[in-house]
Amino acid sequence: MLVNGKLGNLISVRDRGLLYGDGVFRTLRVSGGRALYWPQHYQKLRHDCAMLGIACPDISLLSAELNGLLEQFPDAVMKLIVTRGEGARGYAPPVHIQPTYLWDISPLPDYPAAWAEKGIKACFCQLRLGHQPRLAGIKHLNRLENVLAAAEWDDKNIAEGLLMDVAGNVIEGTRSNLFVVAGGRLITPDLSRCGVAGVQRDRVISWAKQHNMPMHIRDISLEEIQQADELFVASSIIGLWPVREIEQNLWIEFPVCSQIRQSLEGADS
Amino acid sequence: MLVNGKLGNLISVRDRGLLYGDGVFRTLRVSGGRALYWPQHYQKLRHDCAMLGIACPDISLLSAELNGLLEQFPDAVMKLIVTRGEGARGYAPPVHIQPTYLWDISPLPDYPAAWAEKGIKACFCQLRLGHQPRLAGIKHLNRLENVLAAAEWDDKNIAEGLLMDVAGNVIEGTRSNLFVVAGGRLITPDLSRCGVAGVQRDRVISWAKQHNMPMHIRDISLEEIQQADELFVASSIIGLWPVREIEQNLWIEFPVCSQIRQSLEGADS
Repeated sequence: MLVNGKLGNLISVRDRGLLYGDGVFRTLRVSGGRALYWPQHYQKLRHDCAMLGIACPDISLLSAELNGLLEQFPDAVMKLIVTRGEGARGYAPPVHIQPTYLWDISPLPDYPAAWAEKGIKACFCQLRLGHQPRLAGIKHLNRLENVLAAAEWDDKNIAEGLLMDVAGNVIEGTRSNLFVVAGGRLITPDLSRCGVAGVQRDRVISWAKQHNMPMHIRDISLEEIQQADELFVASSIIGLWPVREIEQNLWIEFPVCSQIRQSLEGADS
Repeated sequence: MLVNGKLGNLISVRDRGLLYGDGVFRTLRVSGGRALYWPQHYQKLRHDCAMLGIACPDISLLSAELNGLLEQFPDAVMKLIVTRGEGARGYAPPVHIQPTYLWDISPLPDYPAAWAEKGIKACFCQLRLGHQPRLAGIKHLNRLENVLAAAEWDDKNIAEGLLMDVAGNVIEGTRSNLFVVAGGRLITPDLSRCGVAGVQRDRVISWAKQHNMPMHIRDISLEEIQQADELFVASSIIGLWPVREIEQNLWIEFPVCSQIRQSLEGADS
């Protein structure tokens, strides 16, 4: 683990990342010595920092650190956190403050291969995401909603929980974005009031554009989920997982999801 | 500073307090070797931990640590943070996890005495608090809304910013609770959808009950703020500050606020 460029796994208790969740992060899948979609992740990191007024470290600095880590950990999950830094007491961000940037390395998760091929069992979480347009889409460190939602089930056969917002729209998974296939179109929720816009979501959206598949970004109701031709969740770590079962709803075939998954995985390798 | 009972100012980058803001805190005013309202603060800490399913350290443990700190720092601000602890990757809280508890010490702020006696200048923040009933009232570590709100002004003469919610109700200050005096009644916002319920708020509510002053906890509109007989903000650190000026609205006298302030300060000493 690297903290501000140095080997270590500790940060100050005065870091605003701890005090206020005043920071952002990315979770990278590292496979065969390559960090998948690093340029896209950096672009989102930079965007998210800008939304919060945090000074984002240069890509040259972070890329150099990442390259060093890839040699040592060629297959891993690498979490990159950037916080506003360490400062005096008080919510108002100090004018002169150096961001904290750190990498944390974990093993790749050993998800069953069947989850990608035959689909997952999912559930609906009770927790409803609140609306906060100023934070929507940003992968920031204020993640208590995700923690509370993920605490709702302990059945290991349930791979993901889907989250609705206070208005009853279905928004995302606890750690993934959501896509609906209906009548040959792809639909993914509008994330302008809540939710996190992941890199894999962008890749699916780009794929649809490149392959002339109609793609809509808008609110999605519970009924649309239940009546979908296919449903899948997406993240950099999990790739794409079709949903096989959620409450009383079952799906058996996932031709669109399989096509996109194979196409994106082909691009990865 | 104490981290899990030991001198130090560092925590693990894998602490869920940093990763997700998965923790709660209290900010204590320490004056003349006494931590004001410590039992009430502990009670709220315990309540907030329970709301998030975090194991709260026993009062005997924290009181012993606090007593040691009071000798060394008889006049200070002491921030007590309890996080869910250090765990493996993933939002779901691990079953077996030890909470992290730490104390951070800062000097008492040197607010002008006139702010308590003659009132403060305040502003309305643009940021609107989102509704999340599962987190409302809790002093948790997901405080980006407060950070963004406090970043909105840099006029040192403005002592506090008032926050409205997405529905247009006036909820609180960025670091204080809010009270309105109107027609001999006290009114403070309902915090069941957003906001932080502070110890000083409870003390004012209790004072009103003891002194047979009608006290209402309900939604407050912008118009009620503008037409209030008096307006004041409250926290353990600042005590009570009447609002002298907010946008075009001016107040000159604060008899109710002054009475409550003197009564509460008398109880402190």
